[in-house]
Amino acid sequence: MLKAQVITSPDKNLTLKFELQSNGVPSYQLTYKNKQVIKPSTLGIETKDVPSFLDGFTISKTEQSTFDETWSPVWGEQKEIRNHYNELLVTLAQKAVESREIRIRFRLFNDGLGFRYEFPEQKNLTYFVIKEEKTQFALSGDHKAFWLPGDYDTQEYSTVTSNLSEVRGKMKAAVTPNASQTPFSPTGLQTPLMMKSKDGLYINIHEAALVDYSCMSLNLDDKNFVLQSWLTPDAQGNKGYLQAPTQSPWRTIVVSDKAGDILLSKLILNLNEPTKFKDVSWIKPIKYVGVWWEMITGKSTWSYADVPSVKLGETDYSKLKPNGTHAANTQHVKEYIDFAAQNGLDAVLVEGWNVGWEDWFGKSKDYVFDFVTPYPDFDVKELHRYAASKGIKIIMHHETSGSVRNYERHLDTAYKFMVENGYNAVKSGYVGNIIPRGEYHYGQWLVNHYLYTIQKAAEYKIMVNAHEAIRPTGLSRTYPNLIGNESARGTEYEAFGGNNADHTTILPFTRLMGGPMDYTPGIFQTKVSAYNPQNTSFVHTTLAHQLALYVTMYSPLQMAADLPETYNKHMDAFQFIKDVAVDWDNTWVIEAEPGDYITLVRKAKSKEEWYLGSITDENSRIANVTFEFLPKGKTYEAIIYADGKDASFDKNPQSYAIRKLKVNSKTVLKQFVAPGGGFAISIK
Amino acid sequence: MLKAQVITSPDKNLTLKFELQSNGVPSYQLTYKNKQVIKPSTLGIETKDVPSFLDGFTISKTEQSTFDETWSPVWGEQKEIRNHYNELLVTLAQKAVESREIRIRFRLFNDGLGFRYEFPEQKNLTYFVIKEEKTQFALSGDHKAFWLPGDYDTQEYSTVTSNLSEVRGKMKAAVTPNASQTPFSPTGLQTPLMMKSKDGLYINIHEAALVDYSCMSLNLDDKNFVLQSWLTPDAQGNKGYLQAPTQSPWRTIVVSDKAGDILLSKLILNLNEPTKFKDVSWIKPIKYVGVWWEMITGKSTWSYADVPSVKLGETDYSKLKPNGTHAANTQHVKEYIDFAAQNGLDAVLVEGWNVGWEDWFGKSKDYVFDFVTPYPDFDVKELHRYAASKGIKIIMHHETSGSVRNYERHLDTAYKFMVENGYNAVKSGYVGNIIPRGEYHYGQWLVNHYLYTIQKAAEYKIMVNAHEAIRPTGLSRTYPNLIGNESARGTEYEAFGGNNADHTTILPFTRLMGGPMDYTPGIFQTKVSAYNPQNTSFVHTTLAHQLALYVTMYSPLQMAADLPETYNKHMDAFQFIKDVAVDWDNTWVIEAEPGDYITLVRKAKSKEEWYLGSITDENSRIANVTFEFLPKGKTYEAIIYADGKDASFDKNPQSYAIRKLKVNSKTVLKQFVAPGGGFAISIK
Repeated sequence: MLKAQVITSPDKNLTLKFELQSNGVPSYQLTYKNKQVIKPSTLGIETKDVPSFLDGFTISKTEQSTFDETWSPVWGEQKEIRNHYNELLVTLAQKAVESREIRIRFRLFNDGLGFRYEFPEQKNLTYFVIKEEKTQFALSGDHKAFWLPGDYDTQEYSTVTSNLSEVRGKMKAAVTPNASQTPFSPTGLQTPLMMKSKDGLYINIHEAALVDYSCMSLNLDDKNFVLQSWLTPDAQGNKGYLQAPTQSPWRTIVVSDKAGDILLSKLILNLNEPTKFKDVSWIKPIKYVGVWWEMITGKSTWSYADVPSVKLGETDYSKLKPNGTHAANTQHVKEYIDFAAQNGLDAVLVEGWNVGWEDWFGKSKDYVFDFVTPYPDFDVKELHRYAASKGIKIIMHHETSGSVRNYERHLDTAYKFMVENGYNAVKSGYVGNIIPRGEYHYGQWLVNHYLYTIQKAAEYKIMVNAHEAIRPTGLSRTYPNLIGNESARGTEYEAFGGNNADHTTILPFTRLMGGPMDYTPGIFQTKVSAYNPQNTSFVHTTLAHQLALYVTMYSPLQMAADLPETYNKHMDAFQFIKDVAVDWDNTWVIEAEPGDYITLVRKAKSKEEWYLGSITDENSRIANVTFEFLPKGKTYEAIIYADGKDASFDKNPQSYAIRKLKVNSKTVLKQFVAPGGGFAISIK
Repeated sequence: MLKAQVITSPDKNLTLKFELQSNGVPSYQLTYKNKQVIKPSTLGIETKDVPSFLDGFTISKTEQSTFDETWSPVWGEQKEIRNHYNELLVTLAQKAVESREIRIRFRLFNDGLGFRYEFPEQKNLTYFVIKEEKTQFALSGDHKAFWLPGDYDTQEYSTVTSNLSEVRGKMKAAVTPNASQTPFSPTGLQTPLMMKSKDGLYINIHEAALVDYSCMSLNLDDKNFVLQSWLTPDAQGNKGYLQAPTQSPWRTIVVSDKAGDILLSKLILNLNEPTKFKDVSWIKPIKYVGVWWEMITGKSTWSYADVPSVKLGETDYSKLKPNGTHAANTQHVKEYIDFAAQNGLDAVLVEGWNVGWEDWFGKSKDYVFDFVTPYPDFDVKELHRYAASKGIKIIMHHETSGSVRNYERHLDTAYKFMVENGYNAVKSGYVGNIIPRGEYHYGQWLVNHYLYTIQKAAEYKIMVNAHEAIRPTGLSRTYPNLIGNESARGTEYEAFGGNNADHTTILPFTRLMGGPMDYTPGIFQTKVSAYNPQNTSFVHTTLAHQLALYVTMYSPLQMAADLPETYNKHMDAFQFIKDVAVDWDNTWVIEAEPGDYITLVRKAKSKEEWYLGSITDENSRIANVTFEFLPKGKTYEAIIYADGKDASFDKNPQSYAIRKLKVNSKTVLKQFVAPGGGFAISIK
């Protein structure tokens, strides 16, 4: 009987202890600088059709090792990423089950812990069905948490900031309406889950490398503050179909006493497999505008006609009466192409270009889109020619309406169509309940589907930006053509009632932990009523805050989401969007507190340029900016785009001021930030 | 308020009456030669999300018409088929639902009735979800019935012959084990349902043109002898997702006082849409042998190695130890090709040619087959070359294991592979529970899938023979490349315990009503233990009966299912199989009684040849054969393959005698038929 196993992180700040409890139940605990992060917590998996992996274990073998390697991502916040961990691999057998073993692999980094279950190839274990995974995260107290209601279908809720003990009482109000939603518990929580303990530890729980498994949410025992894994069921209530040899995703716990370390953590990427792609020259970050916000605000429509329903392949669109509000028409798209070309942008997204939008939503329609037939007023070939003549790409749009079999049936044809017509990137969407009916957005079935579309896209050298899909778990290391997801409450919700003013100060600590978000910022006309008098929503930030988002909301895919006509009225502010890079050599956090403020700066890839962004919540503040990231002994020109003195997100969002400043590595700047405000600095 | 509507069949033997009952419930009744076939029976559909289509109807409009046309199928039992009916179209509105109409269309033929619900395009009806269809068939008494337990997943039960009042008591024993089964009611019945009333009427209930709808079974009220439609649910319990304009399948009632008329009825084909295929030259009936029965009996295996599991794309088959029993190897397949070529057959089916068979069954395995990767001992190119050099085709095999998403993902690649390697026909299979889990073999989801595979196959000029799929409903009129289904208990069950001796005297009255069956007859060595000593099953017919099946069990796809080495011992009997046609100019029933005996004869297409088959159940008999079908004034040579005097299916199945006879249109032949026996006659 082996004794408890202990490993530390390379810098020795973190200590992991693994041991078997009485009755042979595996458990682990984690401390950081001698503070308890995870109290003794049990591990295991309950199965349906084979003996469960829960108790009666003995340790067959333990192995310890170290790994230290630096690798370069195809795109990212840093040019180089160090992957340095100490590993403990435990092999377990159960007395009650003859000749059957599993393994638990722990990797302890300086920024946290990752661990996963492994099921080796063996005679006595092949196929098994998961009833529930029973991974615990026993917390040390009633932490402050930034949480979303646990749900099988959506992440588009506003984050709730509260103590864990308040989750139950706040759940009902937190579950706001959505096109497709399935909350599962009065104390269910999504991951990434961000927390702050009373003793000042920042703790983030998520998963890495979610492949061929069901998405993990957490269920909170709010008496004891223990979180337990809660997987997403299939149509029959089963939570996973596995075949050994295989493994679960990594369960990740990122820890620090500095909030900025959470933002800078590369633990989740490091736990993912390196890419096998040989040629990655076709994968490039993109700055784009799009025929989109005008439909989101209600100024225009995706649909071409106003009929109650259509049948693809049967309805003759040329015979329908155009509704006059269809934005995705040849002439209008050319205006966006012109704007993109004039302003040095890369691409134009066009939504609503293809037939089927008249009844795409809320009908559980199987054959809802074909992804290749344009509306009568959208000339595919002409727009390809026009865009190419200006050096602009058009971004394809594949809204699936959650009709997943239909999308897969058309996938090759749709991707071929893209290649033939000059498209190299697609925004996909999964709005509404999933078909096959009974499956959920985050079940194993759909996890498998999303990856299938990304793998197939790579065969066609196509980049994918998947909305309403599973929130990312670092898979873009393995599949660098996955350049974005939405999979959270994005800018569109500013037009659907508004986001909280602190929303963007939270998302980098939560949603962005697993991968970039296509947040689509850049709204200069924050009052939606300016476009659609019937819509009184407004963006809950100032204009300057919107500029800062291009830095604070990391994404290799950055949209200038507002309308060209609005940008044309503020070309001075728009200059920042034109200048800001979308790919980076390095990133530093100046100051950060989840839910309150973020100030960080990034160095543009292969350029002597830096871009800084600072955002705040509904409270104004003074940001303390130091410039130690600049090379010593050189002076640079900074252009500061900041809130006006009287600015505020609700009353005076468009008040901003632009000034220039000479800076060097010793400069200290105290910058006023308005309520819901921010500032952006370009440094050259 | 319009009064009851009455139409008759063209020959006036059948009368249909439609009327609204009190409370505006639509009803119909049917009489045949003044005998009641269907007592007043209600019609309607219960919906989930819109007001139901059940009651409160008024008649808006009625229209009557007549249709009379003769058409030619691409292949079939007759060269020409007359489609002659009187039609009643009723348009109904419901007071309680503003401006919403449905229609019920009745077509009354000389051989029976077809009717369906129609949902016209209209503002107040687009999308709706079916909870249950409520079509009644109120029978006139406790009929004798030939029935299968109602089930969402299998038709492979032995037919039970009993009165309707006995169904409940016999159900438990009737539900024998199957790889995938979901019985739904203690008095649930499948269609086609064959019945015989005490007053001598033969009545068959089924459906025609099952497209984009859920499969109909029947639930029996065994107090009142009323059958009601019972659709197949999806994973959530809903029974159909429809979008107007659309229609239900036709519900069919074939009636006669002559059993032979049931067999000869073309009502179901006539209710299907004509084909839109322009070129049908690639669709040809096939006579084939196959690497199959030796695996079914247990003599050989589909699998190549004996390992507990494999992972496609990861397992290296060349490193596995061959089990030595893998039948689908290059050398052995060449033997079958040689046999086919020597004997004038068209093709060789090969099962077990592709990787994945080691763990294909019972594991709910998603990525189970890829349909293109052969085992190391199966040389695709060499076998293509060899077969082509002998004028033989190889029939492809696509076992899906019910993993339907996986099949669809590979479908284009699999069909392309076929075209590139000289295959033009595929046998597909759906053994085991369906994936997506929660769906059933006969739900709308799978009905849609089967048709998708057939439509896509047509794009590649591929013929399809789908096993374990939905039982046919005449769709091969519209899609003549659907040349076969199994979708019932076939010859393989003779090796899984045996079929009843009367099994094949029932199937033409039940399963075959909607389309041909790939029954795969021709077993000459009826004792399975001759191939696999551990298997004591035996075929419950004589050898001569097996020959007769090539006539009585209509199919454009006919297998000589036994092993060449066995045929080589009985080449005199095998001559009938070599001679018998697979496509016909005309068909006549000499005598028939469901469950007892069938004697019928067919004229070969474009030849002066006739083939007669006669089969009996476990009782011996004397068949009365007349030859009035022969042209008058000419004499022909008949070769009669009959049971020996001492033959019987269980004790002496291989006792047969072949004799020649000169026949003309006036000949009368009294032929002895042994228990479980039969005879076959070729006439040239």
